[in-house]
Amino acid sequence: MFNIVKGTHDVIQKEAAKYTYVENLLMREAQVFGYKEFRTPIMEYSELFLRSTGESSDIVRKEMYTFTDKGDRSITLRPEMTAGVIRSMVNEKLFINQDYPVKAFYVGPNFRYERPQQGRYRQFNQFGIECVGVDSPYRDIEVIMLGYNALKLLGFKNIKLEINSLGDAETREKYQTALREYFGKHIDTMCDDCKERYKLNVLRILDCKVEHDIEINKDAPIISDYYSEKSKESFNVITNFLKENEIEYKINNNLVRGLDYYSGIVFEYHYTSSQGKDYGALGGGGHYGSLVKEIGGPDLEGVGFAFGIERLINLMEDDNLFGENEISDPLDCYVMPVNTQNEKISFEVASYLRTNGYSADVCLEHKSMGQMFKKAERRNALYAVIIGDDEEKEQKVNLKNLVSQEQISIGLDHLLDKLDELFGENEDEHIHHHD
Amino acid sequence: MFNIVKGTHDVIQKEAAKYTYVENLLMREAQVFGYKEFRTPIMEYSELFLRSTGESSDIVRKEMYTFTDKGDRSITLRPEMTAGVIRSMVNEKLFINQDYPVKAFYVGPNFRYERPQQGRYRQFNQFGIECVGVDSPYRDIEVIMLGYNALKLLGFKNIKLEINSLGDAETREKYQTALREYFGKHIDTMCDDCKERYKLNVLRILDCKVEHDIEINKDAPIISDYYSEKSKESFNVITNFLKENEIEYKINNNLVRGLDYYSGIVFEYHYTSSQGKDYGALGGGGHYGSLVKEIGGPDLEGVGFAFGIERLINLMEDDNLFGENEISDPLDCYVMPVNTQNEKISFEVASYLRTNGYSADVCLEHKSMGQMFKKAERRNALYAVIIGDDEEKEQKVNLKNLVSQEQISIGLDHLLDKLDELFGENEDEHIHHHD
Repeated sequence: MFNIVKGTHDVIQKEAAKYTYVENLLMREAQVFGYKEFRTPIMEYSELFLRSTGESSDIVRKEMYTFTDKGDRSITLRPEMTAGVIRSMVNEKLFINQDYPVKAFYVGPNFRYERPQQGRYRQFNQFGIECVGVDSPYRDIEVIMLGYNALKLLGFKNIKLEINSLGDAETREKYQTALREYFGKHIDTMCDDCKERYKLNVLRILDCKVEHDIEINKDAPIISDYYSEKSKESFNVITNFLKENEIEYKINNNLVRGLDYYSGIVFEYHYTSSQGKDYGALGGGGHYGSLVKEIGGPDLEGVGFAFGIERLINLMEDDNLFGENEISDPLDCYVMPVNTQNEKISFEVASYLRTNGYSADVCLEHKSMGQMFKKAERRNALYAVIIGDDEEKEQKVNLKNLVSQEQISIGLDHLLDKLDELFGENEDEHIHHHD
Repeated sequence: MFNIVKGTHDVIQKEAAKYTYVENLLMREAQVFGYKEFRTPIMEYSELFLRSTGESSDIVRKEMYTFTDKGDRSITLRPEMTAGVIRSMVNEKLFINQDYPVKAFYVGPNFRYERPQQGRYRQFNQFGIECVGVDSPYRDIEVIMLGYNALKLLGFKNIKLEINSLGDAETREKYQTALREYFGKHIDTMCDDCKERYKLNVLRILDCKVEHDIEINKDAPIISDYYSEKSKESFNVITNFLKENEIEYKINNNLVRGLDYYSGIVFEYHYTSSQGKDYGALGGGGHYGSLVKEIGGPDLEGVGFAFGIERLINLMEDDNLFGENEISDPLDCYVMPVNTQNEKISFEVASYLRTNGYSADVCLEHKSMGQMFKKAERRNALYAVIIGDDEEKEQKVNLKNLVSQEQISIGLDHLLDKLDELFGENEDEHIHHHD
C-alpha cells in the first residue's frame, strides 16, 4: 500500500462535491462584482516569495516547499496566490493601457510545510480576489462586500467584520516612531518573537498572543491617534457605508493581519455559529500600497482578500450549512437487467439516456434484484429502469420511482418523453445537461 | 520584474474562461455517466510513481519533479493522475463493500520537466476518468463513449477512434514470445531505444518512430493472430457496438499506448479539422489489469482515459470551436457617474444590483463619458447605468442598452423590475446568480 503524503488529504466523491459547490458560488459572486479568473502556475521562481515584505517575510518563508529543478533554478510551490497574480498582471502587461482597476479572482492549492493539525493541511486551497489600481475607498468597500455577500450566500449568518486602518505612509511612520518609543521601555521583558518583531516590523508586536505581552500592548499607543486627514476621511467613508447598510462591524486597532505590505484598511470576517460558538476569523484581507511596484509593476495601490476553502467547508459542516440539494448529486436513472442476457439492451438504454442528457448508470455485475436496488440507493438514483426478458422482447421497460415506489411500464420509444415530463415537474433535481 | 517559471504559463481572463468552459463540460458529462469527482494531492511520495510498471517506467521517470521535503521524504509532483486516484480508492477503502465499479473523474495540473515547445508545458492540465472493478466489455464501451460524447459536445466533428486490443495475459505472453523471436533477428540494426525496449517491454518497439524501424515493424507478427477466445469475444462486443452506433473507428494493431499496465482494449480519439487537417490523437486510454493490485488494492481490472486540457483548447482555438456565448462572460451593467460627486450613489447602485444578482461594475476613476463608454465596452457590458446630478436629485438613472443604443430614464425603485423584464426576454445572457 502507498501512503498519502503527511499533511495532505484526498477529497473525493461527496466531499469533492462540497468543494465544487463552495468554489463555484465564490467564483460566481466574484463575477457578479466584475472580477475575472486568474490561473497562475503552482511553481514560481523562489525570488517571488523572498521579497523583503509580504507574507513570506516572516513565518511562511520557513515553511515553503522550495527545491532546485533539473535546470538548477530554485523553485517554490506557492505558499499564497497574491504574489503570483500580481506577477501575472505585470508580465501580461495588464497595466499598460491604464484601464484601472484590474480585477482578478483565483482559486486553487497552496503549499506550506506546517505542523499537521486538525483542519491544517500542507496542501490547502484558497479563494481570493485582487483589485489593483484603486484610489477610492469605495473599492475597499467593494472588496469587503464581495466577501461579505459570498459568506451570506454560503449560509453564514452572524458575520461580524473586524476592521482597522493602518493609515497612509505618513500615518504609519509617525505611529511606528511612537510604538518604538513605547515598546523600547518594555522589550527586554517581552517574548523572543516580539524582540525580533521590534527590529523588523514593530507593528507586528500588536499581534502577539503571549499573555504578558498582551498586557503591555494594552497601554501601547493607538493608531487612530496618528491618522492623517486623508486616512481619517477614507476610513470614515468605509465605516459610514457599513453603518448605512446595517453591516455589523467592530473597529479593532490591534488588527494588523501580519503582512508588511498592507496600508489603509485591513479587515477580517468573524463568525459566530447559531449555537453561539465563536469561530474566529473566516478570512480577511486589506489594502496594499507597495506590493505592485515591488513586483515590477507601476506604483499602484490594491486591495484584496482570501478565504481558506478547507476552513469554510469545516465550519459549514460544523454548523450544518450544506443543504442536501446542494451536494447530493443524484443519478437520474439506474438501469437494471433482470438476467445476464438483458445486459446488452440495458447498457444500450443507459447509453441512450446519457446521450440525451440524463445521468444514468447500469448494473453489469450480474446481481439479484435486491442487490441492484441497494446499488441504486448507494448511487442516490431517482428512478430504476428495469429490463427483463419480457421487456426486452416487447421493447419496453419498467420505470420505478425510487422515492414514491410507483412503477409504470413504458415503451422504449416513449421513455424520453416520459422522463422529460417527470423531470419537468421537478426541474431542480435533474442535471439539465444538454439544455 | 519577476519571470514566470520556464515552461509554465499564466491562464487569465478570457483564456481562463475557456478552461472553465471546457472543464465544466467534461465534468458534467462524467456526472451524466455516473462518475464522481476525485481531488487527490499534487504531492505524492515518489514511490507511487517509481513502481515497476506504469507510465513512469519509461520516459516520465526522467522528467519528474522530485525533491526531498523538510522531513527528508522524497516527494514527487504528480506527472499523471491515475496512480493517485487509484491510491486514494485503496486508502479510502472504497473497494471494501465490493460495490463495483468505482467510478472517478479528475481534473487538475500535472508536472513534467519536458523540453518546452509549442503547446507543451511543464505544468499542464488533464481531465480523465477511471472505472475500477469491471469484468464486462460494456464498461470499456462506456468509457470510450464518455470521451466520444464529450468531444462531440465540445464541438469536435470528424472524430475517429483508433482501437486495438492487447488481449489478456495469455494472449500477450504468446505474442511477446513471437515478437521477441522476430525482433531478435533484427534488433542489432535497430535504434538504441528499441534495444532498450527489447529488454524491458518488447511491445513498445511497435511504437518506434525511426524510419528504419518502422520498416522492420511492418513485417512483425500481428497481435490479432494471438488473441485467446475470450479476448476475441470481448473485442467483438466492442467493435459491434461501435458499428451498430455508427461510430467511426479503425483497428490499429500497432497502438500500444506506451503504458506497461494496459491489457485488453486501448484507444485514441483522432481528429481531423473542418479544413481537413489531421490533428492526431486528442487523448486516449485503455483497459488495465495489474494496476490496482500493484497499488495495494484487490485484484481488480479497470479502464480509463485522459485528455490534455491545453491540447483540447489549442485545437478548439485553431478550429474555431469556441462560440462567443460560451466564453464572453458579459457584465450586465456598468454604472457611470457623470461627475465625481455622483460616485457615491453610483457605487451604491452598483452594490444594490450586485446584491440582487446582476453583475455590475462602476467607474470610480473620474473619467469623461467617452472614456467610460470605452471602459464599458472593454468590460463587455450589456447596459450602461448613467447617473448625473439631475438623476441623483430625482433618484433615477439613465439605462442605456449598449447594443441597440436605446436609452430610457427610470426611477431607482423600478430599476430591478425593468432589468428583470429586459433580461427575462434574453435569459441566456445573464448570470442568474441568485435564482
